[in-house]
Formats: sequence, structure tokens, C-alpha cells
Amino acid sequence: MLQLALDPCGPLNRSVYAALRAAILERRIVPGSKLPSSRALAADLGVSRNTVLYAYEQLAAEGYVETRVGSGTYVVDSPLVGSVLAQRRRSRRGEGRRRLSSLGVRLSRDRSLGHGRGNTRREALPHDFRFAGAGHERETLNVWARLVGRRARSLSRAPTGYQPPGGSPELREALAGYLSRARGLTCRPEQIVVTQGSQQGIDLCLRLLVEAGDRVVVEEPHYAGYGSCLHACGAAVSYVPVDAAGMQVELVAELEAAKVACVTPSHQFPTGGVMPLSRRLRLLDWARQNGTVVLEDDYDGEFRHEGPPIECLQSLDQNEQVIYLGTASRMLFPALRIGWAVAPEDLVNAFQRLKAIADRDTSSLEQLVLADFISGGWLERHVRRARKRYAVRRTAFLEGIRSELGTRAELVGASAGTHALLRLPELPASRFASLRRACQQRGVGIYSADECYAQPPECVALLAGYASLAERDIVVGVRKLREALDSLGKSSGAPP
Amino acid sequence: MLQLALDPCGPLNRSVYAALRAAILERRIVPGSKLPSSRALAADLGVSRNTVLYAYEQLAAEGYVETRVGSGTYVVDSPLVGSVLAQRRRSRRGEGRRRLSSLGVRLSRDRSLGHGRGNTRREALPHDFRFAGAGHERETLNVWARLVGRRARSLSRAPTGYQPPGGSPELREALAGYLSRARGLTCRPEQIVVTQGSQQGIDLCLRLLVEAGDRVVVEEPHYAGYGSCLHACGAAVSYVPVDAAGMQVELVAELEAAKVACVTPSHQFPTGGVMPLSRRLRLLDWARQNGTVVLEDDYDGEFRHEGPPIECLQSLDQNEQVIYLGTASRMLFPALRIGWAVAPEDLVNAFQRLKAIADRDTSSLEQLVLADFISGGWLERHVRRARKRYAVRRTAFLEGIRSELGTRAELVGASAGTHALLRLPELPASRFASLRRACQQRGVGIYSADECYAQPPECVALLAGYASLAERDIVVGVRKLREALDSLGKSSGAPP
Repeated sequence: MLQLALDPCGPLNRSVYAALRAAILERRIVPGSKLPSSRALAADLGVSRNTVLYAYEQLAAEGYVETRVGSGTYVVDSPLVGSVLAQRRRSRRGEGRRRLSSLGVRLSRDRSLGHGRGNTRREALPHDFRFAGAGHERETLNVWARLVGRRARSLSRAPTGYQPPGGSPELREALAGYLSRARGLTCRPEQIVVTQGSQQGIDLCLRLLVEAGDRVVVEEPHYAGYGSCLHACGAAVSYVPVDAAGMQVELVAELEAAKVACVTPSHQFPTGGVMPLSRRLRLLDWARQNGTVVLEDDYDGEFRHEGPPIECLQSLDQNEQVIYLGTASRMLFPALRIGWAVAPEDLVNAFQRLKAIADRDTSSLEQLVLADFISGGWLERHVRRARKRYAVRRTAFLEGIRSELGTRAELVGASAGTHALLRLPELPASRFASLRRACQQRGVGIYSADECYAQPPECVALLAGYASLAERDIVVGVRKLREALDSLGKSSGAPP
Repeated sequence: MLQLALDPCGPLNRSVYAALRAAILERRIVPGSKLPSSRALAADLGVSRNTVLYAYEQLAAEGYVETRVGSGTYVVDSPLVGSVLAQRRRSRRGEGRRRLSSLGVRLSRDRSLGHGRGNTRREALPHDFRFAGAGHERETLNVWARLVGRRARSLSRAPTGYQPPGGSPELREALAGYLSRARGLTCRPEQIVVTQGSQQGIDLCLRLLVEAGDRVVVEEPHYAGYGSCLHACGAAVSYVPVDAAGMQVELVAELEAAKVACVTPSHQFPTGGVMPLSRRLRLLDWARQNGTVVLEDDYDGEFRHEGPPIECLQSLDQNEQVIYLGTASRMLFPALRIGWAVAPEDLVNAFQRLKAIADRDTSSLEQLVLADFISGGWLERHVRRARKRYAVRRTAFLEGIRSELGTRAELVGASAGTHALLRLPELPASRFASLRRACQQRGVGIYSADECYAQPPECVALLAGYASLAERDIVVGVRKLREALDSLGKSSGAPP
């Protein structure tokens, strides 16, 4: 009699099937042998005959058994049955070794690749200076939720299929208008490719343009997303230092010809400098001479506190040299994964085709909601309101740092955006972990800026976001940061 | 006096700014010259002094002018100002030529790359046999819309930040349970990487594993998404024909070692064959010997009409050779861009890091809604209900084709899924466009299966989806298809 251990959980017919299958694979039922009739097995197992018939049918469909009319059900006779299970986890060395692509090898070798590593924990700290783009404005989120609900209901009445790879026509139309009004951009809606946040824009650009070994110019410091993308694609990276006016373009000119230059001219990330016209023109001139594509990452050009937003580099471009990248994640909330790339006319086709290959298209629902949000005027309303609110928070942060830390801190790049770079020149970089612990104990979340550097600074440098904290939490948070710093000073003998 | 043409539309201060900026860039205002005082220019233009101050401030922030205290505002003196505008659209030949990556070159050269070309038009035809995965079930979509609304509201109260690159923990947990119950998959939630539909899963896998020139095995015919991905990455593709039992694995064994084999064993796309155990084992054995990764694309394994769903290949894998891909787009609706890759343990890290590089993470909202949908039992309820409904539609389709077209049509692969391959052996492939026109005139949408073939068949072959049409629309649609075919026959002299 056939010994079958039935799984007591789950539907009975699946249990019978699974038990038979395991017995065949483990050669407890001999290949070529005849199975009991369904009636007999049902009686043996104390189950209904239909249960057994189900199992036999399934096994036959999957090729474990075959039914011979008028004769019965036989286990297939294949030398391979059983052998699979015997070969558990062979060593990968030797002939059967799996080989990765060179990108795969780079990803596997360098465990440090992949940004945001240190910064992805999610403590619910009352004074969390995480940089996660804009803060969450209740009014905005309520409007957003309402628009989402409306679109979800209308999609349930008249569902849409796939969107074109470049993005939904509604959103591209709305974005072209917004970008022209708010950022001085000149483009046709067809030049816009909607992406999954600006990260996908970066990845698509680099895939289109950069081969392993190619030269790419990146600001130092820079957004960590560039670092891991560029390492992954094997680019030869030249880091160009920034000053208070963004990337030092004078130094670029001396570099050998690069295929791509990645810049944040409206608001250097993370140091906050704004690139003046002279440097912009020089950059475009150099790029034109060398056939270099300039990747303009305008991740939060909307949030400038001193004076109105600066127009983007793309608006100065006469030679189709600039690919412009923007994102809604920074403006609205990080969970929204929508960005946009504006490609020069002669790259639009290749860009769209690569997007189709990368993921076909971006989710309809949020594309349509963002289109509604823009064409309803909500985005510009949100930006105006948020800018005012962030200005108040920024002042609280700047004044707090000044009064609590004085000369112990250097604050860089708070004239725009929703974050600042906070350097603590007296504290060696090696003390960061201790400072973070001391801060955590006081309910303060701090984040190292190290992953923005190819050559991290010797002192502790923090990437501090203040936009999502209320004024009072900023003031108290900065005081507690000072207390944490003091507590370190006492134990290490550094100045109090 | 300064001549400025103010744009009559838009806010006045922007107009003054834009007019000054254009005058500087075009060298109508001489570099180094002093601008009129804000009071004087305001009087000249008949605008308020604040309007002019705004424009000057903005121009200073962007580096077009500089303010010298006690002296006035001066246009910066840079040899580059003006030169940019002079260099309109130079020829790209010569030193300044932009160079693409080899992938970029392949994408630019081969205009045919990028699947779904012929199939993306959106006529609202009453009898549209578009293959777009599952049909839209009203009950399902209503539940979905409700869950979306709920999550959107709760996100507006407690917004989330970025998700981990591998996907939201809630969704991966829910998916691991679902895949084990419904598809026999064994995996830890951490092995799952949530993707933008299965297309992103394919792209990530190929990027990790395949280098230009590497050998990849693909079924013939196959899902068009593979074709464009593989051409883009420069793979050497070996097409292996399929029969009623899926890919003819016997032929694979004779191929030279491949890095990757892309298969649809549960339901060959588009011919519908189910791969029996013997071939599955042989495939795994070959793959083990050659270190080949098997990409199991289980795009609609849930919808099998004759008997229960077939368990997936991954469940037979003992050597970490299989990467399993699935998608919610086929099960629910195409606009939902969520898929999943289940990676072997030793590839999980590289996979997640590549996802972080590709687009950081997938949108939170839909991930969380899908998690709710699965853990609330809605997905399995939907699949059960949809399977019954599709069976009815399938019967209507099969019987319609049989009675209307008889021997003029060959129907392949309708035992599972939501589509069939419909070959019209009497109609040469060159007549497809005429047939489509004749169909369109009758409100019938048809789609060529050619893009699924490396070597398209000589007769017309249609990829026909029936799941989103009501029974009656199918019956009438098939009749009208026959009428369209007859109308061609008359004009061409082919059999009526």
C-alpha cells in the first residue's frame, strides 16, 4: 500500500497531489510503476474519489504521470526524475558556474554600492533631521488623497490600459506647462519622458550615453544616487569640487573630454550653491565643444528662500546638449515615485524606447493624479505655501544652530531647498557613530553626508533636512543635538 | 532709453525680468554697461519700482548683472554672453559630436526596437480583441478603488517615506504567502524584489547577467518584450521552437552554453503549451550543467481552464538556478505596474542593489494597496471568479471561431490564459493591414502576432485576447471578423 503523508493544512485535494508528487520526485514510487486506481487510493486514504481524481489529473497535466486508456495511471519513466533532488546545492565552482554580466560582477563585488544604506532606518524620532525632500503638508496631502480617490473610482468605471512609454499625454501636457511657468523650460510635451522618480531618469541617461571606461564629470560632493549608478556602469568618474557658486566649471574645462556632466546648477546638492550665469555659459560652451551631454538635475529648484527660483540651465541651451531631470518626490512626498526627463529632440526616441525596455511605462493612477494636481493649480499653490512654511523652519534651524553651536558648526547651503549641510569641524569623522547614538538617546535623528562624497571630509558632516519638522521640534532638536555633542566632548576631552 | 518688449501675458515682474535677460543674452545691452536705476526704468516702463527691483534681484541671483554698492547695477562682462545664442544648432559632425553608449547606438539604429508599437493605438472598438491581460472585473475594480481610497487617506495622515528597494515589507510578506499557496513557490519574503511590472524584472535580470555577445535562449514565438530587451543589450539570441508542450528542451541541450534561458513553462506565450515534467527536469539539468540561469516568466499561470493551475518551475529548482517573474498587471489590470522577481538567495543582494540604481523603489501607494488586496483574500477571490468568467468567454470565442471560420483558422493555445493565437493559413502575412482595415470598419480590433516572432509566419497570425469582452461582443466580433475576411477574399480572389 502506498504510504503518503498528507499535509493536515490546506485543501485535501492539494495535499494528496503534493504527497504523490513528492513521492515520485524522491523515487519512493518507482518510475514506470502503476498507481493504484483512484477508487482504491481514495479508500486507502479515507478521502473522496474526486479528491484523488483531482490529484491524478494535476499530476498528468504536469507530466509526472500518464494515463493509458483502459489500463490505468503510470508514473513516467524518466532518468531525470529523482536526480534533481539528489543534486542539492552543488558547489558553483567548475563547469556549472553561473556568470554575471560585468555590471552584475561590479554589483556583487562592491557591497557598498546602492545608496541610502545608512539612511534607510526608520526610527520614529521626534526630532528627525532626515533629508527626505519636502515636508508633508496636510492640506496638500488631503487634496492628493481626494484626487487619488476620484481617479481610482473613475478608473474602476473606465479602466485604462498601458500608457505610452513616455508617459500619459495628460501628464506630459500638464508638466510642459508647469515647467515653462515655474522653471523657464522650453519643451514640447513629447520631449518629456515620465520616469520613476529622478533616479530612473539618471539611470536611463547613463545607460543611453555611458559605456564602461567612459569619462563622466560629477560634482563633489554630489547626490549619492550618481555614485552608485556610475560605479555600476563602470564609468571613469572625474569629481569636480564645488564652491558657494556650485561646480567650479573652470576646472572642468581642463578635464579630458567627458561624455556626460552631471550638475545641479539651481541648487547644488548638498552644498546649496547657485551656479551664476558666467559658469553656466562656460559649462555649455565646454560641453558643446566636446559633445558632452549635460545632465541638469533640478531636484528642488522650486524651493529657493532668498528671491524667486532660478531659471534652469536647459533654457539657455541652444544646441540640444542638456537633458533636464525633475521629480515630484522632492516637491510633494518621497513615496510618490514620479519624475521627468526632458530630452533633446534627437534623443527623445531612444529615450522612450529605453523606458519601454526598462519597465514599459509608469503606473497610470499616480500619473493621472499628478496631472490633475498640476492642472488644478494645486502644485503651484502647494509650492507657494510650502516655500513660506519652509522659510520659517529654515530660520528656526539656522538661528538654532547659530545660538546653540556658534563656531562649533559650519552651515552650508541653506539659501535654497529643504536641507543644509552641517559641518562640525572639531569632531573627527570617526566620532559620527557615537554622536548618532547620543542623538538617538535624545530623540534626535542625524544622518551623515559621507555618502555624498567620493572623498568624505575628515570632520563629521551631516545632511540635515528640516522641512518636515515643526518649528518647535527644530528648536528643541537643535538644542538636544548640542547636548549630545557636549556629552561626547566630555568623554573625549574635546572642547565642551 | 532702454527698449524692452514686455510680454503682455504673465505676471509683470517676470515680463520685465525676461525682457532684460533676453536683451543681455542678445547683447542689445552692452556687457559691462550700467543699467538704469530701478526708479528710472520703472518710470520708463510705466510699472512699479518693486517690479523692476524684482527683476534686478533675479538677474543678479542668476549672474546676469552685479550690484555695486553705492554705484548701481551693471551687466556682467563675460565674453561668453551672447556667444551661446550665436551658436544655434551646429552640425554634430566633427569635434563636438555627441557619442552614445553601445546600447544607445543600438536603440538609435534599430527604429523597430521597443515592443508594442503596432499594438498601442487606442480605438474604442466594440469588439476589440486586444491582448491586455485579464479583463476588468467590475467587482474587483470597485474593491481596488476602495482600498486605494483608504490607503491614500491613511498616507495623508501618516505619510511614508521611501520603501526599501526590494519592496514594501507588507507586500513581500503577502506575496510570499500568495505565491506559495497559488503557485507552489518556496521563498522567503526577502527573496522577492517588487518591480514595475514583469518588464522591469526582465530588464533587471538581463542587466545582471548578460553582456553584449552572450548567448541567451528564447522561445520562438515569445513575448515581444524579450526581443527588444535582448537586442538592446546586444545578446546573441538562440530561438528554440515550441510545440504543444512548450519549448522543445531537447533542442536546447544541443545549443552551446547560454547564460540565460527565458521560458514560460506554465503557459507558453503566446502558443499556450504547458511544459511537462520531463522537459522541466531536462531544462533544469541542462541549466545546472552549464551554469545557466532560467528566467521563468509566470505571467498568467493562474488562469488555466482545463484543470487547476500548474505549479511553477521554481518549485522544482534545487540549485538556485531559477529566477521567477510574476506580475499583477495580467491578473488585475494593465495600468497597475507591479510585478515581482523571486531571486535565488545568492543573487538577492545584487538584484536589490540594481533595483535601487534603476529607480530606487516602486511607488508606495499601489504596493500597499496590493498588499491589502492580497491579505484581504481579494486576489484569490478575483482569480477564482475571473477564471470562471474567462472560461465562458473562451468557450464563446472558440465556438465562434470554429463555426464562423472552420478550417480557415487554426486556433492555438486556448487551454490557459486570456488569449489565443489565431492563424489564418490561407491569408498571406502581407494581407494583414487590409484585414485590419476591414475589421476596423466593422468595429473589430485585431492585432498581429508578428512581433512575437523572430521569423514571422508566412500567413496572418493574430494575437487575440478575449477576456475583457462580454460574451455577446465576442460572438458578434468573431462573426464580423469572418465578414471582414470574406470581403478580402472577394477582392483578392482567395477562397470565399
